[in-house]
Amino acid sequence: MKEISSLQNPLVKKVLQLKDKGRLRKETGLFVIEGIQEVELALEAGYRFSHLFFREDTSPKEDLIQQSQAEELIRVSDKVYAKLAHRGSTEGLIGLAYAQSHRLEDLKLPGENPLVLVAEAPEKPGNIGALLRTARAAGVDAVCIANPRSDLYHPNIIRSSVGCLFGLPIALASSTETLEFLEQKNIGIYAAALEGSISYLEADYTGACALVVGTESTGLGEEWLAESHTVVRIPMKDRIDSLNVSVATGILIYEALRQRTMS
Amino acid sequence: MKEISSLQNPLVKKVLQLKDKGRLRKETGLFVIEGIQEVELALEAGYRFSHLFFREDTSPKEDLIQQSQAEELIRVSDKVYAKLAHRGSTEGLIGLAYAQSHRLEDLKLPGENPLVLVAEAPEKPGNIGALLRTARAAGVDAVCIANPRSDLYHPNIIRSSVGCLFGLPIALASSTETLEFLEQKNIGIYAAALEGSISYLEADYTGACALVVGTESTGLGEEWLAESHTVVRIPMKDRIDSLNVSVATGILIYEALRQRTMS
Repeated sequence: MKEISSLQNPLVKKVLQLKDKGRLRKETGLFVIEGIQEVELALEAGYRFSHLFFREDTSPKEDLIQQSQAEELIRVSDKVYAKLAHRGSTEGLIGLAYAQSHRLEDLKLPGENPLVLVAEAPEKPGNIGALLRTARAAGVDAVCIANPRSDLYHPNIIRSSVGCLFGLPIALASSTETLEFLEQKNIGIYAAALEGSISYLEADYTGACALVVGTESTGLGEEWLAESHTVVRIPMKDRIDSLNVSVATGILIYEALRQRTMS
Repeated sequence: MKEISSLQNPLVKKVLQLKDKGRLRKETGLFVIEGIQEVELALEAGYRFSHLFFREDTSPKEDLIQQSQAEELIRVSDKVYAKLAHRGSTEGLIGLAYAQSHRLEDLKLPGENPLVLVAEAPEKPGNIGALLRTARAAGVDAVCIANPRSDLYHPNIIRSSVGCLFGLPIALASSTETLEFLEQKNIGIYAAALEGSISYLEADYTGACALVVGTESTGLGEEWLAESHTVVRIPMKDRIDSLNVSVATGILIYEALRQRTMS
């Protein structure tokens, strides 16, 4: 196994740049995954790796190495690992993986009554991660990120999703394209807004449906409000501050699931 | 108005220590609130202030000063403000406020069918803040924090609740005391656990009820599981990682509200 103990090593610099620069991730088709659970979830979802980095005190699992098909295994010193890793945790595993495509036209949906989550332009990578975690726990069929502000492989998205993005069908596209896609597939659009005309409890989510949420600060774009079949609101007691976007999304998704299991 | 431009000023040091040390907050009965919305919400909820600090480029609102009954108004230099404040934002207002009591025996509940949220030993102040924000938006009648790991006035709780803790009836006590309190008041206990015996949808929340959530890592303590009337689970598709605790709490509370408005 190759060893690296210098912070000046070109590969170390490349990993740091890939964490930092979405443009470089796009150009190279590579991104960084930190943590054992995260790497394992990516492997389960069919991701392949170019490099795996192990901190010097860890012993890599044989089957993980096999499955990763990594072209190079590298043992790194504590100092190098600490520089590469975000967490001070003891996992000691970082991978450089090949991106998958997240084009809308490739998005696979179940034939009957898909339940889709659409998030328009989420502000922070951490919010996207939290949404993906909720979507996965709830078992939604697919997630569309409309008008995304970053690529899907931002380190904070991976971290805050606890790796849940791997294995979830996810597409990134403009709002216009996403709307067209949903309309073509006859998927009902339920947009959430503070000024929604009906309570989210009054809508019927038992057919094919897309739940659409906007940002916490500005809400959904006009396009979505104009084109949606129904604009729903979650009743709130207090005008002070709306629910966190991932909490609101969890409430909507679980109401849809409730109706779907009850019906 | 008094002015401070030195980082060595004793009052500046005191504010920094009060942000940092729960013990000092307890000894002095004072704590720090940052931000205009946060200070305004505290005023609405009857909090009184010993000091208000304004950054030199801001002009304080007259009615806010009046209402605060602050004993001293202080203009601080940019440098001092930057040291005192957590956010780089432009609000320019920090208050030193007198703590309120959060004893269980003082907790006021509506006579009929109260809806209470109980959070046992939440790990991070940020999680408590998120729970309080959700509780306030949903309009629960009271929140109990059982076996708390910090006081209520930790700066991260205030910040992540966006000030929503002010004006919410909140009590801090041991789990044993909280259980006794709920039993005395004939409030049904619905504990949430991954291994809950029934789905959260099968329970009836239309009477007086307390929804009890534990930590993300270890769940609820034995005491709660043994004493609760019902242990409910939120169905999840994927064993990978449970829902974030504030998302799970939002789902439970809104199901309770659904039943209460429908019945």
